[in-house]
Amino acid sequence: MKIIVDCFGGDNCPKAAVEGAVLAINEKKDLTVALVGKKEDIEANLAPLSYDKDRVEIIDAQDVITNDDSPVIAIRRKKESSMVVALKTLADVDAYDGMVSSGNTGALLTGGTLIVKRLNSVTRACLAPIVPTAVDKKYTIVCDAGANVDCDPSMLKEFAIMGDVYVKTLFDIEKPTVALLNNGAEEEKGNALTKETYQILKNSSLNFVGNVESTDFVSGNVDVIVCDGFAGNVAIKSTEGMAKNFMRMLKSAILGGGLRAKLGYLLLKPALLSVKSKMSTDEVGGAVLLGLKKVIIKAHGSSKELPFKAAILQVCKLAERNICEKIEKGLNA
Amino acid sequence: MKIIVDCFGGDNCPKAAVEGAVLAINEKKDLTVALVGKKEDIEANLAPLSYDKDRVEIIDAQDVITNDDSPVIAIRRKKESSMVVALKTLADVDAYDGMVSSGNTGALLTGGTLIVKRLNSVTRACLAPIVPTAVDKKYTIVCDAGANVDCDPSMLKEFAIMGDVYVKTLFDIEKPTVALLNNGAEEEKGNALTKETYQILKNSSLNFVGNVESTDFVSGNVDVIVCDGFAGNVAIKSTEGMAKNFMRMLKSAILGGGLRAKLGYLLLKPALLSVKSKMSTDEVGGAVLLGLKKVIIKAHGSSKELPFKAAILQVCKLAERNICEKIEKGLNA
Repeated sequence: MKIIVDCFGGDNCPKAAVEGAVLAINEKKDLTVALVGKKEDIEANLAPLSYDKDRVEIIDAQDVITNDDSPVIAIRRKKESSMVVALKTLADVDAYDGMVSSGNTGALLTGGTLIVKRLNSVTRACLAPIVPTAVDKKYTIVCDAGANVDCDPSMLKEFAIMGDVYVKTLFDIEKPTVALLNNGAEEEKGNALTKETYQILKNSSLNFVGNVESTDFVSGNVDVIVCDGFAGNVAIKSTEGMAKNFMRMLKSAILGGGLRAKLGYLLLKPALLSVKSKMSTDEVGGAVLLGLKKVIIKAHGSSKELPFKAAILQVCKLAERNICEKIEKGLNA
Repeated sequence: MKIIVDCFGGDNCPKAAVEGAVLAINEKKDLTVALVGKKEDIEANLAPLSYDKDRVEIIDAQDVITNDDSPVIAIRRKKESSMVVALKTLADVDAYDGMVSSGNTGALLTGGTLIVKRLNSVTRACLAPIVPTAVDKKYTIVCDAGANVDCDPSMLKEFAIMGDVYVKTLFDIEKPTVALLNNGAEEEKGNALTKETYQILKNSSLNFVGNVESTDFVSGNVDVIVCDGFAGNVAIKSTEGMAKNFMRMLKSAILGGGLRAKLGYLLLKPALLSVKSKMSTDEVGGAVLLGLKKVIIKAHGSSKELPFKAAILQVCKLAERNICEKIEKGLNA
């Protein structure tokens, strides 16, 4: 396995990316990583670490795509950025199996499609994050979470098939449950898009379990939730917004609650941390761009070394298990 | 003020509706209520209460629309249901100023439009709930939260104007901030619908502050969030889903955390309850159906007597301040 790591663009880069890559090769002995970005910075971050130097390669790229860059313009113009160099290397060199980046999501989507390109049977690539749920060790995959904001039913069917293959490949679930995000559980519910998609999914060979409402995003009731990228983005961000604001309110209630509340918080802290860790994907990985010719994972922008390591190992698993071939096969079945 | 209360259809009906109505008339001395539903049940629930009997009227209706009923069919066929009788009375009798129901939302929307009817300038009525936020005493209004799942930009403009009038009328905010729900903050973001709507709102006389992402649903940053009913429904339900699952996980972490966690919980309980009460609209009211000829409020299905009282007083406030005329005026400006 040879995995490319875009070491710039994320909040904790390059340190987190470099350290995560070293953790990954120290754990997986057949893995080689190519670290892309400002050579001197990468070397400085590698210096204190202990690892097998034969399995770390550096590809110099002096420019960086930031979150303020417009995706399409950045991919076209920032030819020397770590992301574009990483994508080009992935596309051009057969030996590389996949890539991880914690940079600008839009740019990665655009660059993935323009440079690495879609699989032959794929009309649109989709962004499929892993959503942690209230059920222990149970995750829900959302396709699409924002790559395609205007969709038609045939695209949603494609997302459903790719999501199904993805869950089978990543989690070894034999018959993943696939649900359609809708504004009600009943078959007749929905807008023009979901009503038509429902009938298509119902008549597919997928293990389609019908509609779910967005309350089910974190319930852990289904394996794959299919939706257009606009609705997926809305659902994920309002879930995140609620979690963040809940913690904010709790913090302010504790600070305003005097000694009693502070003592209560100290005693309850392990339980609160266990909830926080349950809602984290740090050890699971990032969001995959489904439908491209090679595996690309978008790690969260705030990723530290452990999420980077997890995302790199996730790419390995998906590449080793030939997810791209399986997606082609699934779409042609 | 004469307000109609549909006393059936909600989880705690008729008790909560009847008690809420009595609380409302005991607080507001110029208020008369008409309680609609099974006469004998309403009388039984009134019997132990102390109130001015001249200001409570009972309108008998022996049937009930449940949440399992299909909205359109229920409104057409259940002519003797408390909801249909209430809506017909509201539509036909000038003296009644508005209505509260905690029954089937879809049926109330359908019945409101078919029986009470839209204002002359309104193309589509929308459902506008009050969303509690992390900021104390600050609420955000969402239009539309589910009445119209397929929208065009002109409908979204109408929702924006109605939402603006609503916030001015209910909360005495002079220049409400109006934002568009989108998948990014930048002007160029969005799907076909939001991109076109952005330009329309930007060129309107509203205090349009641009796009918000759904993380802002509970941040308290804006007064009105405009969106199509599908996206609004998704955002609200994932917010609710996260809140519910967070509490579920916290509970299980406390139960599994031994004596230490349980003691911590007891000490922290007042702080946790203060967060819970901050996220409640029990004292504020329900979701209004904006754009109809009279004021109709949908109280939450799980409403107890205090939310019923709040919703009834909310109808009074909106009717006294002539919201329907103001909406007509706003749409014709």
